[in-house]
Amino acid sequence: MKIQDKHYHTIWLKVGDKRVVQVIDQRKIPFQFEIFDIATVDEACFAISEMVVRGAPLIGITAAFGMYLAVLNSDGSDFENYIARNAEKLKATRPTAVNLAFAVDEISNFILKNKSRNNLHELVFEKVESMKLQEVINSERIGEFGLSLIEAIYARTKQTVNILTHCNAGWLACIDWGTATAPIYKAHLQGIPVHVWVDETRPRNQGARLTAFELGEQGVPHTVIPDNTGGHLMQHGMVDFVIVGSDRTTAGGDVANKIGTYLKALAAADNGIPFYVALPSSTFDFTMSDGIREIPIEQRNVVEVAEIEGIIGGQIQTVRIISEKSPVANYGFDVTPARLVTGLITERGICKANKESILDLFPEQKQIKTQW
Amino acid sequence: MKIQDKHYHTIWLKVGDKRVVQVIDQRKIPFQFEIFDIATVDEACFAISEMVVRGAPLIGITAAFGMYLAVLNSDGSDFENYIARNAEKLKATRPTAVNLAFAVDEISNFILKNKSRNNLHELVFEKVESMKLQEVINSERIGEFGLSLIEAIYARTKQTVNILTHCNAGWLACIDWGTATAPIYKAHLQGIPVHVWVDETRPRNQGARLTAFELGEQGVPHTVIPDNTGGHLMQHGMVDFVIVGSDRTTAGGDVANKIGTYLKALAAADNGIPFYVALPSSTFDFTMSDGIREIPIEQRNVVEVAEIEGIIGGQIQTVRIISEKSPVANYGFDVTPARLVTGLITERGICKANKESILDLFPEQKQIKTQW
Repeated sequence: MKIQDKHYHTIWLKVGDKRVVQVIDQRKIPFQFEIFDIATVDEACFAISEMVVRGAPLIGITAAFGMYLAVLNSDGSDFENYIARNAEKLKATRPTAVNLAFAVDEISNFILKNKSRNNLHELVFEKVESMKLQEVINSERIGEFGLSLIEAIYARTKQTVNILTHCNAGWLACIDWGTATAPIYKAHLQGIPVHVWVDETRPRNQGARLTAFELGEQGVPHTVIPDNTGGHLMQHGMVDFVIVGSDRTTAGGDVANKIGTYLKALAAADNGIPFYVALPSSTFDFTMSDGIREIPIEQRNVVEVAEIEGIIGGQIQTVRIISEKSPVANYGFDVTPARLVTGLITERGICKANKESILDLFPEQKQIKTQW
Repeated sequence: MKIQDKHYHTIWLKVGDKRVVQVIDQRKIPFQFEIFDIATVDEACFAISEMVVRGAPLIGITAAFGMYLAVLNSDGSDFENYIARNAEKLKATRPTAVNLAFAVDEISNFILKNKSRNNLHELVFEKVESMKLQEVINSERIGEFGLSLIEAIYARTKQTVNILTHCNAGWLACIDWGTATAPIYKAHLQGIPVHVWVDETRPRNQGARLTAFELGEQGVPHTVIPDNTGGHLMQHGMVDFVIVGSDRTTAGGDVANKIGTYLKALAAADNGIPFYVALPSSTFDFTMSDGIREIPIEQRNVVEVAEIEGIIGGQIQTVRIISEKSPVANYGFDVTPARLVTGLITERGICKANKESILDLFPEQKQIKTQW
């Protein structure tokens, strides 16, 4: 995707006198565009834990690059312990991100299997690049499948397709294209007129800060709205399609996503508007069936609600917006029950949000089912 | 109600060497508590248009006090034109506030009817005070009727009653007690354990700033939450009762209120939680029946969304939180259809949100109905 008309991935290797992994510093978007250098495992840990990078697919690939840096910087002594120690360090940065652990384990196993090879760091780099490419392909496929839904709306209405999204399930959370944004970018590139209502997404404002930024840089028409606004727009025919990402989706199609997603799903259902969830298949948790009862909801630091970052006089500053006397709560996610979800868009295709339809797309899970 | 353990109304006359109307400066709450002096009609206009005071009942009474100051400061020349000019000035401050015009007209007519009386300014003051007292009585009655609902929940559960509210329909919007908050204060004073989930209420954050402040000053347990949170709380049995105010309610019971109210009503309905609206009868618009189609929704300045006030280093500062490149929309209100409203709490009693039940409470409107 483009920033200031130049193509970027969210993470890449810079090959100069010294090899450095570079990422877009997402803490400063949209106010400043800066590249952040990662030269060591510790710097990779910092980037993940301090949210220089965020978004499940990007966190996984950043950790994989971290393991590559570990190999690159190794002096070879006590190698197996050295790899294990660094893997644990990376996994501890965001303990709840399932695919972070998955990515680290995959690359660790690869390293240990090939540890006696002469060109080990080259092999590891190729492995990380192929994991990265797989994420790009997943996003592109989600984009192509989702595009068909937007095309169908446009074929019917012959008018700008108004799409509402919540939080940032964009390319900045992935490597390229994004999940919820991928069909939007595909439609825009096809010349289908689209306009995106971007939920601000309190408390961290990832919609206003990240989604609006990336849509703007691609030239996709969009409008930022407070999270309170979507229901009113839907009542007045100003939304044709809702698409969001997911942090975890159960075997029955219940969708955990950023807090507030459920409210938009209710409004979509009340107004007969299709509500889709875009997700790579790694987001499914086939061990769970009742999302509302089973998916643990993280309570995050209340400072995220009580304070906010913005610009004063060209500087990024943090202001306190809630009195220190007021107690505050900060639930990170909610669960949208499957009955409110029109469909799930994965890299394998689109399915309904129910067990049968999901298993048709993931037949290998039918084996596992009997072990539940 | 109390602030720093001292009893206040939101507006009063200070009788010293010079008579001055005083109000609580609501622009600075909760960060600073300051009294704002109004000595002239122009200062009353400033207080209303700059939102030193806000909330329909309080705006009306502030305008009435403005007309009192006009009489007090008159030199008697060209009196009728002088009164008309000042009335127009006050009405122009917030043109959409119906009861502002109503209050100004009522007091203007009173002034003109009594203009030859020697003690005119005393009479006008008494009139304004009686209008103010009527607002207090309306709030108290709403509080008593609403209390019965909270008592019934407590009698059933014998546990802290968790109440969710949106925006500020509190005593700061009125003279005393508030509308949505009145039953909460009454329950708290009765010793019923209550806890209030306070929606932050983007974009102007009246929940986080005003409702949290006034609940805190009364010692009512409460927690500020992002507007995205309510649905999750309701799914998990953490809300027993939802109560909000209204800016306009149709003859059929459709409720216009702060943007985002509709989303909470949907979540309440989806989880079988009672959703009540507290409103003085002046909020009914008996000329309208289909709220979604008929009630005009104000689009407000987008700066309210793109910028936010907070505290840095003890100073109130404004920061920009959305890039200047991002288009923004700011719809002020939404309409909750009557089917999602469990009941309406008025100073006359509680009714269902439908034409028949409303007319049972307001039988005088049955006459008017035939003229529609």
